[in-house]
Amino acid sequence: MTDTRALVRRKSQRASYDWQDAADILDAAPLCHVATVRDDAPVVLPMAHGRLERDLVLHGSAAAGLFRDFRNDSAVCVTATLFDGVVLGRSARYHSMNYRSVAVHGRPVRIEQPDLVRAALRAVVDHVVPGRWTDVRPPTPAEVRETGIWRLPIEIFSVKRREGPPLDPEEDRDLPGWTGVIPSWQAYGEPLPAAGCGGERPPRTPR
Amino acid sequence: MTDTRALVRRKSQRASYDWQDAADILDAAPLCHVATVRDDAPVVLPMAHGRLERDLVLHGSAAAGLFRDFRNDSAVCVTATLFDGVVLGRSARYHSMNYRSVAVHGRPVRIEQPDLVRAALRAVVDHVVPGRWTDVRPPTPAEVRETGIWRLPIEIFSVKRREGPPLDPEEDRDLPGWTGVIPSWQAYGEPLPAAGCGGERPPRTPR
Repeated sequence: MTDTRALVRRKSQRASYDWQDAADILDAAPLCHVATVRDDAPVVLPMAHGRLERDLVLHGSAAAGLFRDFRNDSAVCVTATLFDGVVLGRSARYHSMNYRSVAVHGRPVRIEQPDLVRAALRAVVDHVVPGRWTDVRPPTPAEVRETGIWRLPIEIFSVKRREGPPLDPEEDRDLPGWTGVIPSWQAYGEPLPAAGCGGERPPRTPR
Repeated sequence: MTDTRALVRRKSQRASYDWQDAADILDAAPLCHVATVRDDAPVVLPMAHGRLERDLVLHGSAAAGLFRDFRNDSAVCVTATLFDGVVLGRSARYHSMNYRSVAVHGRPVRIEQPDLVRAALRAVVDHVVPGRWTDVRPPTPAEVRETGIWRLPIEIFSVKRREGPPLDPEEDRDLPGWTGVIPSWQAYGEPLPAAGCGGERPPRTPR
């Protein structure tokens, strides 16, 4: 956690290195962004994730491009962000956004032992719809082999957030016009059954 | 656009290199994720953005850490993602997510000419609340100088998306249980005025 990669260099009053803060953001975010380096240039793509205690679990096809980079034991950065609102100050300069974000740094380790792959896959499936794993057909041995699961210890990380109203300077306080926050969140709608669907409707995700 | 960095290597039926697709996703996403390389390791952080025609505009304090990386003329990758829903197949293997994502690759150029900084800042302010720029105090010359604005041509990019129901294989079609999609979107709530707020309530963002 004291690794320099995880040191927030700007607006450090918005930073935290608290483990629970990091876990809460990772659990609430439906996806994360995974950055790797390919031919000296960064690449960042969205990916499904889950959490198994102190490990972040990343999931993709074993053939996926990003995972080829992982095979080289390359460093990655995984960032999950929740957008919480638009901050409208009284001047252009004091516009901002409210958000919670965690960046995890490290080198992912491929999981190949079948029981561990299943446990990790379960963490990913249950991540967005808790309890879903026990309602569906488990993966076959062939599916387990084809599944690319990497784990990244949540050890080197930093949390950054902004919350609350705009911070207009004193001299702007008498300017006319609306100022405040438009709150925002990831909403979930009514489940849409697929053709031939049976069974009970899943709970809407509580997140 | 034919740069190999932007070639989608996996599930290419989900890929597009269409300019309008890219612009639509960038315009609808409230924030983007910007990846740079620092000491050979990737770093990815959320950032506010806007679009000026065929340029992506990135905004942060001139002192911000990521922007120090930009000064070295380093390559970046900027990815904007909209999460559209959870895809619940009849087996663990066929769970997925619906999303739209665009990744833009290149080397950002700092904008310093004051009029261009203002135009770019306007693109960022109007990005989430259209028309906001004309309702607020414009930036002072000192604020313009302190503002770090970079532009990244939207030339080398790839769009990736998934939509629609789960794609369970034929042999799973008779399995019991619920299958389908839980739709999801970024929602915006009622604007919350800050202390001392006057003026008319801003329109809720249409996105």
